Amino acid sequence: MAIAPDPTALGLDRLSMNLGTLGPGRPADEVLDACARAGIRTITPWRYSYEAAGVSAFARSMRRHGMVASSVCRIARLGGADTPPAWRNAIEEGRAVLDEAAELGASSVTVIGGGMADGSRSLDDARARLRDGVQQLAGHARSVGVALALEPLHPMVAADRGCISTLAQALELAEQAGDDIGIMFDCYNSWWDPALPRSIPAAASRLLGFQVADWLVPTQDLVLDRGLMGDGVIDFRHLRGMAEAAGYAGCIEVEILSSRFWQQETESIVAQVVERFTGCC
Amino acid sequence: MAIAPDPTALGLDRLSMNLGTLGPGRPADEVLDACARAGIRTITPWRYSYEAAGVSAFARSMRRHGMVASSVCRIARLGGADTPPAWRNAIEEGRAVLDEAAELGASSVTVIGGGMADGSRSLDDARARLRDGVQQLAGHARSVGVALALEPLHPMVAADRGCISTLAQALELAEQAGDDIGIMFDCYNSWWDPALPRSIPAAASRLLGFQVADWLVPTQDLVLDRGLMGDGVIDFRHLRGMAEAAGYAGCIEVEILSSRFWQQETESIVAQVVERFTGCC
Repeated sequence: MAIAPDPTALGLDRLSMNLGTLGPGRPADEVLDACARAGIRTITPWRYSYEAAGVSAFARSMRRHGMVASSVCRIARLGGADTPPAWRNAIEEGRAVLDEAAELGASSVTVIGGGMADGSRSLDDARARLRDGVQQLAGHARSVGVALALEPLHPMVAADRGCISTLAQALELAEQAGDDIGIMFDCYNSWWDPALPRSIPAAASRLLGFQVADWLVPTQDLVLDRGLMGDGVIDFRHLRGMAEAAGYAGCIEVEILSSRFWQQETESIVAQVVERFTGCC
Repeated sequence: MAIAPDPTALGLDRLSMNLGTLGPGRPADEVLDACARAGIRTITPWRYSYEAAGVSAFARSMRRHGMVASSVCRIARLGGADTPPAWRNAIEEGRAVLDEAAELGASSVTVIGGGMADGSRSLDDARARLRDGVQQLAGHARSVGVALALEPLHPMVAADRGCISTLAQALELAEQAGDDIGIMFDCYNSWWDPALPRSIPAAASRLLGFQVADWLVPTQDLVLDRGLMGDGVIDFRHLRGMAEAAGYAGCIEVEILSSRFWQQETESIVAQVVERFTGCC
């Protein structure tokens, strides 16, 4: 049975702060302190978020701050791994991120497609490698109790970052790869997709996350020019309404990858995210 | 019955030079002379290609050079026309471009979606306006003997230029708008689309054009950083094979919108296009 859409303002209990919003290079304690002071209790670390401190120390610090991790970013190299050494590295990276996610208590790891390999011009080949890699990692994921969540990226990064470009395609691949393979939905990557009214309900039972960042007009960089919610054109409440009508009740994860944003102070970024989250999402 | 794909090199008889490859500001005679000397006999003018000379003088010059126009670019404002004056302007522009295309002897005019209106954040509204506008222009198109060809643009320009983002969506809209509404397929805009193996055959009977420009890695501008065929990652022969297997036998139109390309001499651009067309398409 469909649940009625809920277009009302969100409370901070629904927010997961994706630490990609703060970019690389900030001390872990500074990041966790700022989030905790702002009332944020759920985070999504990137590997760079905990690399300097070490994953165990980062996990302890999270617990001291009363925080949980909803997800970890990310497994990223499978599609482009077209040589045996690249394939071994990609699988090793996948296992390591899954182990780290388990130690952080995260329930899922995001998997992006990766790009076409340098020597190949075939998206189909990259997509087949991704499917094989996800199947190969699925057993380890089950054994550590962390789900794999396939994320379609925006078609503008299909060549070099994400060979999976639509939600329908991510769903098809997840269905091929196994019953317990999930999906991460990112409004920034998929807001333009005319098939969403069909593919969101179709993917609902596998939906493990829902990310937000706004599409700026003009957009000046294909990777690091995402906008704060409300500064662009995406209707988040409409998209959230579709996901919730299909049964999604999990976190709304704020992932604003922005080189301009990253130049600001930690406190300032966190404050802006909190304000816009409750006002625009 | 499906025609077997033809992955062999193309002859210049299949080439249509989209004059957007040469950019605005070049004298019409310089452009037509350079194309004619290179053996190009089919062109696709933009409005700026003939505005300075006037459409009648441009048409005469085309005939003197033994040239024909395959298509004209373009009707572009329907999706964004959310006020009565903007709507009237968009429809007037549409009628004018159709009249000009008829005078140039072109068989079709490309119609892009236009962006979301400034005051609106609804792609659905923009798409509905586009459908209404195409329906409204269809009678005039028939009366002047020129077909409307809907072109899906890349999702990265959905907000501000083209609210139609996939071939499947263009086909759905064409089917709603009328039996004689065609489709323009642009490899640059659609190469990433995982649905092409289904949507190209589905759209085949309406396919009025097939455009090429390469996807560069990295891409540094969302509009004017297209690449010469062979400088990027798109497998044109694979895509052309799909279109030809579905029955397409028309022009292959070279449309390289590139601010870097536009800085070069007319002769040089034309020579590079001819070389890469036969080598890579």
